[in-house]
Amino acid sequence: MAIKSYLSEQKLLVEAAFETFIPKAEGVVKKHIEAMRYSLFAGGKRIRPILCLAAARAVGGESVDDQDILPVACALECIHTYSLIHDDLPAMDNDDLRRGKATNHVLFGEAAAILAGDGLLTWAFDLLSNPDSSKLAAEKKLAITHCIARAAGSYGMVGGQDLDIANENSEFPFETLQTIHRSKTGALITASVISGGICGGAAPDTLAALEKYGDKVGLAFQIVDDLLNITATTEQLGKAAGSDAERGKATYPAHFGIEETRHLAKQAVEEAKNRLTGFDEKAKPLRLLADYIYTRSH
Amino acid sequence: MAIKSYLSEQKLLVEAAFETFIPKAEGVVKKHIEAMRYSLFAGGKRIRPILCLAAARAVGGESVDDQDILPVACALECIHTYSLIHDDLPAMDNDDLRRGKATNHVLFGEAAAILAGDGLLTWAFDLLSNPDSSKLAAEKKLAITHCIARAAGSYGMVGGQDLDIANENSEFPFETLQTIHRSKTGALITASVISGGICGGAAPDTLAALEKYGDKVGLAFQIVDDLLNITATTEQLGKAAGSDAERGKATYPAHFGIEETRHLAKQAVEEAKNRLTGFDEKAKPLRLLADYIYTRSH
Repeated sequence: MAIKSYLSEQKLLVEAAFETFIPKAEGVVKKHIEAMRYSLFAGGKRIRPILCLAAARAVGGESVDDQDILPVACALECIHTYSLIHDDLPAMDNDDLRRGKATNHVLFGEAAAILAGDGLLTWAFDLLSNPDSSKLAAEKKLAITHCIARAAGSYGMVGGQDLDIANENSEFPFETLQTIHRSKTGALITASVISGGICGGAAPDTLAALEKYGDKVGLAFQIVDDLLNITATTEQLGKAAGSDAERGKATYPAHFGIEETRHLAKQAVEEAKNRLTGFDEKAKPLRLLADYIYTRSH
Repeated sequence: MAIKSYLSEQKLLVEAAFETFIPKAEGVVKKHIEAMRYSLFAGGKRIRPILCLAAARAVGGESVDDQDILPVACALECIHTYSLIHDDLPAMDNDDLRRGKATNHVLFGEAAAILAGDGLLTWAFDLLSNPDSSKLAAEKKLAITHCIARAAGSYGMVGGQDLDIANENSEFPFETLQTIHRSKTGALITASVISGGICGGAAPDTLAALEKYGDKVGLAFQIVDDLLNITATTEQLGKAAGSDAERGKATYPAHFGIEETRHLAKQAVEEAKNRLTGFDEKAKPLRLLADYIYTRSH
C-alpha cells in the first residue's frame, strides 16, 4: 500500500461525507454556514478523520461499517477547523493566510469568524450525539462524545492554546513546552485514534494501546510542525513560515536544534509503531500514517 | 409558593452544584479556568438551569433525583455564559459591563476571553456526555446532549447571534426579528425545558407540551429583554441600558411601541401557561416561572 494514494483516497472519502454530515449553506443562516463551510472545505490533510477511520478498521476490520465512523470523523475535522479559525483571529495569532487562502476573519469579518468557529464546534457535538447519525449504540456514542469533549476542551486543546498564547515571548521550562504540545495538538489526535477504536469495538487493553500510539503520533506531529515552521517555505505550508520564531514561541528546534529535533520526531514515530506490535496487518495504515507524519512536507 | 424565595433557593442549589461539576482553578491551566469561572460565578439569574430542574420535577416528581438533573443544569449555564462572553467581545457587541462587573475580555484580555468561552462550551458537552456524571441512562444522556447541541448551534443560538450582528442598522421584516429572537434566546430556553423533561422521563406528548411552553417562555423572555433595555437603568440591568437603539437593533418596542410590546409579552406568558393545562400541581413552579419572566426587573 502506497501511503500517498491511501491518503488521497481516504481524504476523498472524508470530504464526500461532509456533504452528508455538514449543514448546507441555505435558509436564514446561509451566510453563517457559508463561513463554516469555507474553512472546512479550504483543504487540509484530514489527518484526524483518517486516523479515526484507520483505527476503527485496525480493530474491527470488515465488521466495521464506514457509515458508522464517518460522522465521528467529520466531527473531528469540524473541531480541528474551528480551532484554526479561532487561532487565526487578530486577538490570537493574527494570521491572514491558512492553507494558501485568506483566513476566515479576513474574508467574513471577525464577528462572523468567531461565530463560524462556535458553530463548527457545536455542530461537532450535534453530530456526535445524534441518535440517528449511525447505527452505533448509545453507550458507544456517549463514550466517543465524552472522549472528544475532554480532548478538545480546557484539559486538552483549548487549555493548550491558552498556555501557548500566555507563554509567548517568555522563558519557560521544557516541561511546559511538552504540556502545550500534548494538550494543544496531541490530545485531539489521540482522541481521533481512541474514538475510532471505540467505533471498531476495541477491548479496554486495545484502547489503551491505541491511546499510547495516538499520544506518540500526536507528539511527532507537533514536533514536525515546529520543524516545518523553520525549514519549509510559506508557499509549501500555505501559512506564514517562520512565524514561531517571530512570535517568540518555544519550540522543539529552539530548544534542541534542528538535527536533534528530527531525531526526536523519528523516535516518537518508532515508539508509536511499537505500541501496535499486538495488532495484525489490519493496522498497516496506522503504521504507515505514523511514518507519513515524520516525512510530510507541509 | 413565593417565586422570590423559590428562585433564590434554586439559584443556591445550582451554584452549589458548580463546585461539583465545574473545573477547579488549579494545575497548569489555572489561569484559563479562572477566566471561565469568573464569568460563570459573576451572578446571573440561573433561569435556564432552574427551568431545567422545574421541568424535570413537573414530569417526574419525587422519583427524579436532583443529582441526575444538576449536571445538565450546570451545562446549560456554561453554554449561556460562553455566549455572553463571546457576545461581549470587541468584535461583537463590544460591551465593558455585564452583571455590574467588567466583562471577561476587559479583565483577562481578548484571546483569553475567546478561549474561556470555547472552554465553557466544550465543558458543557463534556459534562453532558460524561457516563459517570449521573445515573441517567446513556440513551437519555445522548438525547439531552443532542437536543442542547442543536439549540446552541448554527440552527439555534449561534445562528441567531450571527443574524443579529449581520442585521444591525438595517431594515428587515418582523419575521426576521422573530427568527432572531427564537434562535438567539428562545432555542436554549426551550432546550432547558425539554432536557429537564427528558431527565424526568417525560413521554413524547408531554415533551411536546414542554417544548411549546419553552417556546412561549423563551419568546416572552426576549421581548421583556427588549423592553428592559429601554425602560430600565444601567444600574438595574448591570449592563449598558439603551444599547439596542444605539446599535440600531430591531426590537419589539422599536416595531410595536412599548405598550403593545408589554401586551405581547403578557400574551406569550399566558400561552406558555396554557400549554401546561394537562400538568398537575407539580408544574406550579413552571407556571410561576412564566409569570416571573414577565414581571422581572432585570
